[in-house]
Amino acid sequence: MLAELYFKRRPGWWKMLAVAMYMALLACLQAQELQGHVSIILLGATGDLAKKYLWQGLFQLYLDEVGKGYSFSFHGAALTSTKQGQEFIAKVLESLSCPEDVAPGRCAELRGQFQQLSQYRHLRTSEDYMALSKDIEAQLQHRGLREAGRIFYFSVPPFAYADIARNINSSCRPGPGAWLRVVLEKPFGHDHLSAQQLATELGSFFQEKEMYRVDHYLGKQAVAQILPFRDQNRKALDGLWNRHHVERVEIIMKETVDAEGRTSFYEEYGVIRDVLQNHLTEVLTLVAMELPHDVSSSEAVLRHKLQAFRALRGLQKGSAVLGQYQAYSEQVRREQRKPDGFHSLTPTFAGILVHMDNLRWEGIPFLLMSGKALDERVGYVRILFRNQAYCAQNEKRWVADQSQCLPRQIIFYIGHGELGSPAVLVSQNLFRPSLPSKSWKEVEGRPGLHLFGRPLSDYYAYSPVREQDAYSVLISHIFHGRKDSFITTENLLASWVFWTPLLDSLAHEVPRLYPGGTENGHLLDFEFSGTQLRFSQQQLEQLVPGPGSAPKPSDFQVLQAKYRESPLISAWPEELIAKLAEDIEATAVRAVQRFGEFHLALSGGSSPVPLFEQLATRHYGFPWAHTHLWLVDERCVPLRDPESNFQGLQAHLLQHVRVPHYNVHPMPVHLHQRLCAEEDRGAQMYASEISALVTNSSFDLVLLGMGMDGHTASLFPQSPAGLEGTQLVVLTRSPSKPHERMSLSLPLINRARKVAVLVMGRMKREITMLVSRVGHEPKKWPISGVLPSSGQLVWKDPVKSFCDGDTSFVGRAVMEVVQTIQVL
Amino acid sequence: MLAELYFKRRPGWWKMLAVAMYMALLACLQAQELQGHVSIILLGATGDLAKKYLWQGLFQLYLDEVGKGYSFSFHGAALTSTKQGQEFIAKVLESLSCPEDVAPGRCAELRGQFQQLSQYRHLRTSEDYMALSKDIEAQLQHRGLREAGRIFYFSVPPFAYADIARNINSSCRPGPGAWLRVVLEKPFGHDHLSAQQLATELGSFFQEKEMYRVDHYLGKQAVAQILPFRDQNRKALDGLWNRHHVERVEIIMKETVDAEGRTSFYEEYGVIRDVLQNHLTEVLTLVAMELPHDVSSSEAVLRHKLQAFRALRGLQKGSAVLGQYQAYSEQVRREQRKPDGFHSLTPTFAGILVHMDNLRWEGIPFLLMSGKALDERVGYVRILFRNQAYCAQNEKRWVADQSQCLPRQIIFYIGHGELGSPAVLVSQNLFRPSLPSKSWKEVEGRPGLHLFGRPLSDYYAYSPVREQDAYSVLISHIFHGRKDSFITTENLLASWVFWTPLLDSLAHEVPRLYPGGTENGHLLDFEFSGTQLRFSQQQLEQLVPGPGSAPKPSDFQVLQAKYRESPLISAWPEELIAKLAEDIEATAVRAVQRFGEFHLALSGGSSPVPLFEQLATRHYGFPWAHTHLWLVDERCVPLRDPESNFQGLQAHLLQHVRVPHYNVHPMPVHLHQRLCAEEDRGAQMYASEISALVTNSSFDLVLLGMGMDGHTASLFPQSPAGLEGTQLVVLTRSPSKPHERMSLSLPLINRARKVAVLVMGRMKREITMLVSRVGHEPKKWPISGVLPSSGQLVWKDPVKSFCDGDTSFVGRAVMEVVQTIQVL
Repeated sequence: MLAELYFKRRPGWWKMLAVAMYMALLACLQAQELQGHVSIILLGATGDLAKKYLWQGLFQLYLDEVGKGYSFSFHGAALTSTKQGQEFIAKVLESLSCPEDVAPGRCAELRGQFQQLSQYRHLRTSEDYMALSKDIEAQLQHRGLREAGRIFYFSVPPFAYADIARNINSSCRPGPGAWLRVVLEKPFGHDHLSAQQLATELGSFFQEKEMYRVDHYLGKQAVAQILPFRDQNRKALDGLWNRHHVERVEIIMKETVDAEGRTSFYEEYGVIRDVLQNHLTEVLTLVAMELPHDVSSSEAVLRHKLQAFRALRGLQKGSAVLGQYQAYSEQVRREQRKPDGFHSLTPTFAGILVHMDNLRWEGIPFLLMSGKALDERVGYVRILFRNQAYCAQNEKRWVADQSQCLPRQIIFYIGHGELGSPAVLVSQNLFRPSLPSKSWKEVEGRPGLHLFGRPLSDYYAYSPVREQDAYSVLISHIFHGRKDSFITTENLLASWVFWTPLLDSLAHEVPRLYPGGTENGHLLDFEFSGTQLRFSQQQLEQLVPGPGSAPKPSDFQVLQAKYRESPLISAWPEELIAKLAEDIEATAVRAVQRFGEFHLALSGGSSPVPLFEQLATRHYGFPWAHTHLWLVDERCVPLRDPESNFQGLQAHLLQHVRVPHYNVHPMPVHLHQRLCAEEDRGAQMYASEISALVTNSSFDLVLLGMGMDGHTASLFPQSPAGLEGTQLVVLTRSPSKPHERMSLSLPLINRARKVAVLVMGRMKREITMLVSRVGHEPKKWPISGVLPSSGQLVWKDPVKSFCDGDTSFVGRAVMEVVQTIQVL
Repeated sequence: MLAELYFKRRPGWWKMLAVAMYMALLACLQAQELQGHVSIILLGATGDLAKKYLWQGLFQLYLDEVGKGYSFSFHGAALTSTKQGQEFIAKVLESLSCPEDVAPGRCAELRGQFQQLSQYRHLRTSEDYMALSKDIEAQLQHRGLREAGRIFYFSVPPFAYADIARNINSSCRPGPGAWLRVVLEKPFGHDHLSAQQLATELGSFFQEKEMYRVDHYLGKQAVAQILPFRDQNRKALDGLWNRHHVERVEIIMKETVDAEGRTSFYEEYGVIRDVLQNHLTEVLTLVAMELPHDVSSSEAVLRHKLQAFRALRGLQKGSAVLGQYQAYSEQVRREQRKPDGFHSLTPTFAGILVHMDNLRWEGIPFLLMSGKALDERVGYVRILFRNQAYCAQNEKRWVADQSQCLPRQIIFYIGHGELGSPAVLVSQNLFRPSLPSKSWKEVEGRPGLHLFGRPLSDYYAYSPVREQDAYSVLISHIFHGRKDSFITTENLLASWVFWTPLLDSLAHEVPRLYPGGTENGHLLDFEFSGTQLRFSQQQLEQLVPGPGSAPKPSDFQVLQAKYRESPLISAWPEELIAKLAEDIEATAVRAVQRFGEFHLALSGGSSPVPLFEQLATRHYGFPWAHTHLWLVDERCVPLRDPESNFQGLQAHLLQHVRVPHYNVHPMPVHLHQRLCAEEDRGAQMYASEISALVTNSSFDLVLLGMGMDGHTASLFPQSPAGLEGTQLVVLTRSPSKPHERMSLSLPLINRARKVAVLVMGRMKREITMLVSRVGHEPKKWPISGVLPSSGQLVWKDPVKSFCDGDTSFVGRAVMEVVQTIQVL
């Protein structure tokens, strides 16, 4: 209004303004043009993926971005002859579709523009790449365009990566000031080593910021919504998104199809590499990671994702259950001409239990599951919250949006299944979520539809206003440089570091066979307990006798019925461990009843782990509150070192029971920032502590192990210290690393009221037999010096069976030396 | 056969055998008679309880035991005149009924016998008791019977106990060799003190073994089945009955009736004393106790029960939610002629969260709930097991007895409710239970009946073959001396020790009003989180303004806007605690990023508890694994003493976060079995530890408190040690107990990079204001000596509000002194 008044008074100004406006418009248009030209080269342009998704994705990109100041050219490249390639491309481009809201006429016009910008190229040799680069440059020059960047989309098998990468790097990089983006498709290696090799190779051609590794799951709308949802509902989720409120997280991808026709690929990869290592793990990190302050910052998202990887607890054989649909081996035999007797061990079904070692998620099970030939096709992430309510009225009177006793869950429904579309579901008794109303709408009622135990009407349910294909989403993200939707090298390697040990340990496992489809019944249901996963239904017969089948009892031999001149009682190792744990508890209870406390000295290493676990999870009557824990020996490493005996004790026993802090007595091997320095007098300190707290320095029970050289505690044949004399605690030298040790001395051990010796593993068979014959020769065989100073010595529990000392417990054996002296 | 052959050969033997048989039969009959005579005296024989249950129970006892060698006499005693009493008794005895399997004729005959053995007695003075005793003796002599024992059943109000007990003890004890049993009915006191007084008084008349305190809930068939069920299904339950598998335990007694007509009793007791302290607590111990090897041993059962009591974690105000049905106050006003303005605070509804501090049950919620005027009458114990399964098929295909994803529960259904009878229910996907088939039968199908979320057909369901009244069961147990069905003095006092502190702390709480019946809706639903219980629905207005209502913001005054010459920022205490916790976390993260570790020195006492809890439950990013925890000061008590600062730190922080054992540094106040002995050089040891581990002995953060005398750490105005000089750690003397202390010195504190001071409670208002004025006078006010040696000193967070320093957090205040020096 003011301007109008002004101009009314000085009419000449109108003209000046018009000129200024024109100048500004020109500048603006130039600036738009200044966004520059983008060349997109689709490698493998005639392949299945390109045909099915990528061309459509590129067209969608064109539709979204045209008119925003960019100019484009699209190069479909392949090894096919030019003619065939051109025909293929022409055909594909004819079938491109526009979104529903674009009128057919306008769509045809846009498709025509796109077709004009797209061409086929035969691309094989470095000369081809050089020629491509020259063509692009010539075109730029011809049209007076600045180059913004080049995108190379690798829709080719991994073996072709290196050559292509070399050619791009040497002959086809864009000019200065323009960016290069290469888009890579999985598989990104087969395990940590191969992934690393591939990454190193690619890294020699491209910078990290130039590489976009696609996991198309990250382009699925429900998956892409996880972080925005967490961000937009921060207030409601802040107090809920943690171990205090979440009961479990399920990350599931079920397929009805099987691997028929794809077995050559599948035989090499299997379900874990095909689905879990990438898709489900990526989803897991989105759910579990600490939410960055700014979720739109790719850098922050990627950093938090890596932190989540670091918090993953290592997987063990027991963290997985594997299955294989019954027809699979036959399909492999047929498609790959294998002999009749061939049985594949490749899993087509896997359930995995993942734990996070951080304060937010400690103890909460993340269940990952995927399989082929299942009863339905569906993918989802389900966060189930704990029911921490008691509802005072009869359940008949519960109201869905008010009763805290009905299940509370948040589900990112990735697609398919009974709902048939991507969705976000939030139980109404939880909170009304906030979703971007432009892109997500409420799902219409579907009477009779039950999801996750509740009718659909019990949820706030949202689905996308416009369903988008994952590749379209990702191509747009590549164009906008949103690196957080892609797998960085660090991320990729972190994932392989996590999965490779499990894959290795499962390599020879025999998967459970399942019939497929709805006939699977409850055969594939699985359960967790602690960190272990197992199928709910026991199944005794293994239909496929694989190379990794467990050793049978008959594989072992009974050693002898007498041991060191005393009678032996035989039993299976599990029973012996159980018996030993019972004995220790009984000894503890008796000691506490009489003296008010129980002094237990424990050895380290892997042998006592099953015993610790038995004590931690089965002995509720154990008087831990009155138990003092001492170390028999310690390696001279910091206490937090994984090699530290104390660290093992902490992990397998201490963190599960409630021993008061002040009753735990680690050996002081680390003083004044030094390890076992003689002048720090750590051994003497420990001896004083024992003298001060343990009556007569006589432990109630000492648990020993035995080495293959006959050593026990850290008293070695080659090291004279601690075998005799008055010192209670000594520094010794081990022949194996770490060499320096601290150990209780033999005289101190022999003052104990009870001594138990645990020996595990077939490797120790010879020494065990040898020790059974030698007399009292501690300098040669320190173990033979274990002769408690008074009372009757009874070798009570024998070695019945020995097998390889692997990490599994099956077949391990125990023997126990018990001194049954009168307890004072 | 052999005997027959023998007799065939020597026929004379037959006669001899017959004679021997006759002799044996005679001896046997005599032995039966030798069981002797039992006199049962029912005190309060004309009261409601007697009329409703006790006479019938005595008749049942007679039916069960007659013919087993006992003879009986039943004495109904009361204060009524003889004539009235006789008439009453005659009437009651006429209505006695036999079990269904006794024919009517036989029943009339037995009732006639019972009537002949029963008589009314007026029993008031000691002479009356003497006369009764004489009559019994005379009868015994007359009939030539030996006396087996006497049972006195006290069905009288507690105030009458003492007189009766005195009379029995002095004038009515049975003769030598015969037992005395007195049966007592609740209430057994009103709190721990009154229960103890009552117990002491009774103990002066009776031996413990003579007293049978009735909790009739223990006679309910489903309750009485808990231990036998656990025993008979040991194998299935062994691995399940613990925190690894149980999700929660609900112990519930809901009533539809209200307290009308009984308000004079109810006003004094309320729902916790009426139902929870006794019935539900007894049930709790049966579920939670360690199962004795021999459940038929009363002594073992009672001992294990007491152990369960000892494991109960103390209740706090926050462990309870209280309600009162809306009409209650009006009923009290009417029945007890209270003025119009009278509002009762007596709860008629209570939900309580109980935790057990033992390894079997640690962390598992036991929810106890009872109330009047609810939507249904029902009682049950429900053990819900964790769902630890993932079911691979769509839920539509789950099969009830196979799917581990359906709820798994064991329910002891005490009675009423939709099932209408006592029952034991076990989910079919759990295991098929074993129950005594003579007394328990399978429940018949009831299509459409849902219980606890599942159709009845999903359970193995058993109910008693013959429903028995609780009193009949208990009278039989009294007769057979089965003391484990009764409340021993120890048991009673243990229960009151558990409940009294809660009752005291709730004495002035205003219960939530509820309309009653089905209209309660979700108003009484409650939720737990950690150890706290709260109603699920928030309700802002308190309809009854009770004496214990929380202080309002306007009750407090803002102290001042400047503090010690520096600007203050005001906020409510909760916000300040949250802010302080955030600051500490940020400081920790920064320290770990720069130095790899964070050294935090913490004060003890109750003030920092909310801060610890904030840190423990809200700060998932806290780098605990790299944090060293030090003590600012310590009381010279053993570290496990409840007064120990370390103990508080352990309870409120350490057990919730994962600080490695070796990073926790308690002060060595307890060496060589002595406390803070100068010659043990504990202070020097701690100083060396600090010097060795903390760079420059400069803690990253020291958290201090302040006492009303201006002391901080354990540096007191009256004690000169530690205010200056070179000592890092000192022994000091506190004016209050325990006098001896160990403390960081002021010079050491002032070397810290940051110092925060936390002050809580209205009591400290004066000293806070005083300190705001004084200069650097550490000898007078040690807190004024807190002047970190470099950098700018900022008093950052002020005291906005002060209120009484009670244990609740509302209204507490924080102030913080932060030294913002350049972090090196």
